[in-house]
Amino acid sequence: MAARGETRARVLETAGNLFSRQGFHATGVNQVLAESGAPKGSLYFHFPGGKEQLAVEAVAAEAGELGQILDTILDTAADPASAIIAMADLLAARLEDSHFVDGCPIATVALDVGADSDPIRTACSAGYDQWVTSIADYLTGFGINTDTASELALLSISSIEGALLLAKTQHSTAPLHRVAGRVAALVTQEVSS
Amino acid sequence: MAARGETRARVLETAGNLFSRQGFHATGVNQVLAESGAPKGSLYFHFPGGKEQLAVEAVAAEAGELGQILDTILDTAADPASAIIAMADLLAARLEDSHFVDGCPIATVALDVGADSDPIRTACSAGYDQWVTSIADYLTGFGINTDTASELALLSISSIEGALLLAKTQHSTAPLHRVAGRVAALVTQEVSS
Repeated sequence: MAARGETRARVLETAGNLFSRQGFHATGVNQVLAESGAPKGSLYFHFPGGKEQLAVEAVAAEAGELGQILDTILDTAADPASAIIAMADLLAARLEDSHFVDGCPIATVALDVGADSDPIRTACSAGYDQWVTSIADYLTGFGINTDTASELALLSISSIEGALLLAKTQHSTAPLHRVAGRVAALVTQEVSS
Repeated sequence: MAARGETRARVLETAGNLFSRQGFHATGVNQVLAESGAPKGSLYFHFPGGKEQLAVEAVAAEAGELGQILDTILDTAADPASAIIAMADLLAARLEDSHFVDGCPIATVALDVGADSDPIRTACSAGYDQWVTSIADYLTGFGINTDTASELALLSISSIEGALLLAKTQHSTAPLHRVAGRVAALVTQEVSS
């Protein structure tokens, strides 16, 4: 029998996958329990706040996981332009590997839960903030002033998020690569100016 | 009693609103019929393809409606930068007026229906294409070459789409205005170069 912590972690991971693919409304807690192999009725034991708590924690976990991958890219990229392009490449590969199912891990929940839950909305907002702040901090390290860095970071995340959406509907990663190329050029221009 | 065409149009409009706010999965055909005042069981009379046909037509109608508004902005803006800013302003106002519920009219369906329905996915893709093409055609009128114009149009729609997503989760239109300002400056630079 799995230890308590293991079951909780497995439920959370399964919830993260299902919420990010299907959105909040289409994902039932019974499906999460069944797919994670957790006993029926164990949800409220591990997540007393029910489906909403599960979604808040799943969004935070998904955002944190992608955030760590983005941080690794920022740590290892040769320059800011390569970093932007590597991020888009990573998300393009993720999309292709999943046959155009896995786009941004939190966007579907951010949109479909919308105004219905402040805690979930806030978790999504914190996820985006985390990514934008990582990129902004990274760019200031190249001598870009704080305001411009935060604006370019916001543009990077926004344009990649939007391009992921278009890429998903087109079944093509071309929008991601084109948009990232253009934003990368813009960032290079700011670094050199 | 409403004429056949009137009922159909009302069902389609209600479906467009509900799908764009709640996504595909959370919207039931009974809710669409109830809110549009159409008789129970009339869905398959007007839409023999059922909920999928309803969504395909609703997405096309929503995309067409916003496309017409964008075209009006492009026709009347003083210059490309003003056009980009006016688009973001329009979407920001739409978001604020709806207490941060109404973002992009097709994004929620594009994400939550994802790989489940090719006809709906294709309708979403056609909607985005329509907006990107309008902007690209407009930009070529300012002497920007076709490739650059289509890249800038793609960047405009992608970044505005992504910023809408962030704005919705933050309950603030600031991301939209910041991103649009930066893209507008980039477009001005291309026009003058």
